[in-house]
Amino acid sequence: MARVFIIGAGATRIGEHWDKSLRELATEALLAAVRDAGVDKRDLEAVYVGNMSSGALQGQEHLGSLIATWAGLAGVAAFKVEAACASGGAALHQAFLAVASGCYDCVAVVGVEKMTDALPHDVTASLVTAEDQEYVAFTGATFVGLNALVYRAYMAKYGVKQERVAEFAVHCHRMAVANPYAQFRREVSIEEVMSSPLIADPIRLLECAPVGDGAAALVLCSEDYLRRNPRDELVEIVGSAAATDVFSVHERRDMTTLAASRRAAEAALRQARVEPRDVDVLEVHDAFTILGVITLEDLGYAGRGEGWR
Amino acid sequence: MARVFIIGAGATRIGEHWDKSLRELATEALLAAVRDAGVDKRDLEAVYVGNMSSGALQGQEHLGSLIATWAGLAGVAAFKVEAACASGGAALHQAFLAVASGCYDCVAVVGVEKMTDALPHDVTASLVTAEDQEYVAFTGATFVGLNALVYRAYMAKYGVKQERVAEFAVHCHRMAVANPYAQFRREVSIEEVMSSPLIADPIRLLECAPVGDGAAALVLCSEDYLRRNPRDELVEIVGSAAATDVFSVHERRDMTTLAASRRAAEAALRQARVEPRDVDVLEVHDAFTILGVITLEDLGYAGRGEGWR
Repeated sequence: MARVFIIGAGATRIGEHWDKSLRELATEALLAAVRDAGVDKRDLEAVYVGNMSSGALQGQEHLGSLIATWAGLAGVAAFKVEAACASGGAALHQAFLAVASGCYDCVAVVGVEKMTDALPHDVTASLVTAEDQEYVAFTGATFVGLNALVYRAYMAKYGVKQERVAEFAVHCHRMAVANPYAQFRREVSIEEVMSSPLIADPIRLLECAPVGDGAAALVLCSEDYLRRNPRDELVEIVGSAAATDVFSVHERRDMTTLAASRRAAEAALRQARVEPRDVDVLEVHDAFTILGVITLEDLGYAGRGEGWR
Repeated sequence: MARVFIIGAGATRIGEHWDKSLRELATEALLAAVRDAGVDKRDLEAVYVGNMSSGALQGQEHLGSLIATWAGLAGVAAFKVEAACASGGAALHQAFLAVASGCYDCVAVVGVEKMTDALPHDVTASLVTAEDQEYVAFTGATFVGLNALVYRAYMAKYGVKQERVAEFAVHCHRMAVANPYAQFRREVSIEEVMSSPLIADPIRLLECAPVGDGAAALVLCSEDYLRRNPRDELVEIVGSAAATDVFSVHERRDMTTLAASRRAAEAALRQARVEPRDVDVLEVHDAFTILGVITLEDLGYAGRGEGWR
């Protein structure tokens, strides 16, 4: 397997971009990553786009070719990769494989969503297409509702108070203050979280990831490419893995653990030959506080029922 | 780059499957490919799903995990790859890269669409999401309309009569007669094609690919996997490439040539070290007769304006 390096990163601010379309956000992040990489964009041989909602919210599919064209890259190989909330990560995994295969020397990956110019009901409906339309979504179930069930099951199983789980939001907001790309750059207190409106009992508004617009991009390259375009600082992808769980929340044997997170993290750590404690920066999917807490347990950073610590 | 082999293939009949859902069609093809490969399905490490329309027509995204679960494969890495009408081919390309990278030893790829249980207007609207929603589709343009423009431009440029282009449908129907998976297994005459209803002047009904339901799947594996699971007959993927053109039909410098087909075919032939004339079986995208004719020219099987011969 060929080694894979990250040589550029770019992002837009996340927020309500009334003045920018999906393609503009993606192109802005993509070209920022190319500038950051300090390469000629014509060196890119492939573009991977991670996106879930453009079909439902913009009536636009075929984003690979669309964004390649708008970035002035028509001609490259281009693909959209979709895996619900993991679409960006899944696209990065494909870009990694493309370079690791030796087939491509320099590729870009961009994750983009444009959600604020749709009505709330349409956003909720587009998100729940990640659950089972025939057996779950048609009942009117929403993701916040399903995660409320998970939340209750977790509190009941481990005798944990909601305030402890909700602390995850306080922590995440603190991390966002210094991040110029973050949507909300202010700290919140646990009192603010717990007194924010109830969305789906017990989930409070400030325990939910906000709806937003934005894009982030990376440029990846091979060792061969680096030899031709040398640089001092190197970031290598030393492990990348993906996994699934059973499809629906109700099908899981235990709602309070995410088998896919555990499995994928184990595989990536094995590839990288590192232990969880060797990791300095960790980013987990926390659409709702409870998911962040459970993921910390699945990734080996806390015992079962102790992720909130 | 590791060598990649095809060890199994499966498909459903293409047609109107009122009694089968999208997931059932995909699972049927996927498990048929696994049976054909003669392997234990638990050997599969990843599933790639090629699909364009499930979001619009079934309100269902996240097909990678959905189909992995329904095929009894929950746990594997799973992804949906979308590239409009090229979604199946794009998914196959990713599956190829996954094995070529050395990351995966045995993967499945399945292409699936379920279109007949939607109203014609909804099918047309879902297809045109592959064109530019903001600049083209919102005008009411459809793909058959856009290809009618291409058709007229081709006939005008090369002084070719429609009967010559429409012959492509006669040829394709002849090829379908012996194919048990084909949607329409009967020959048609050029008179039937030319007297079929006009859909978008000059395109006639029998010059259009029909709307249908169905799925097709392959199992790919590495040389390592073959060593552990030897077999006599081998099919190797000796070249695989993808490319884009500018996004919209009206942006092309010349509407009568498909730059992406030419570019991708050249790259794949170069990888495989073969010439167009070495190829025994050719399958081209022929949503409309004109596209088949133009593709034959772009792939080097005919001179410009002579693909209809």
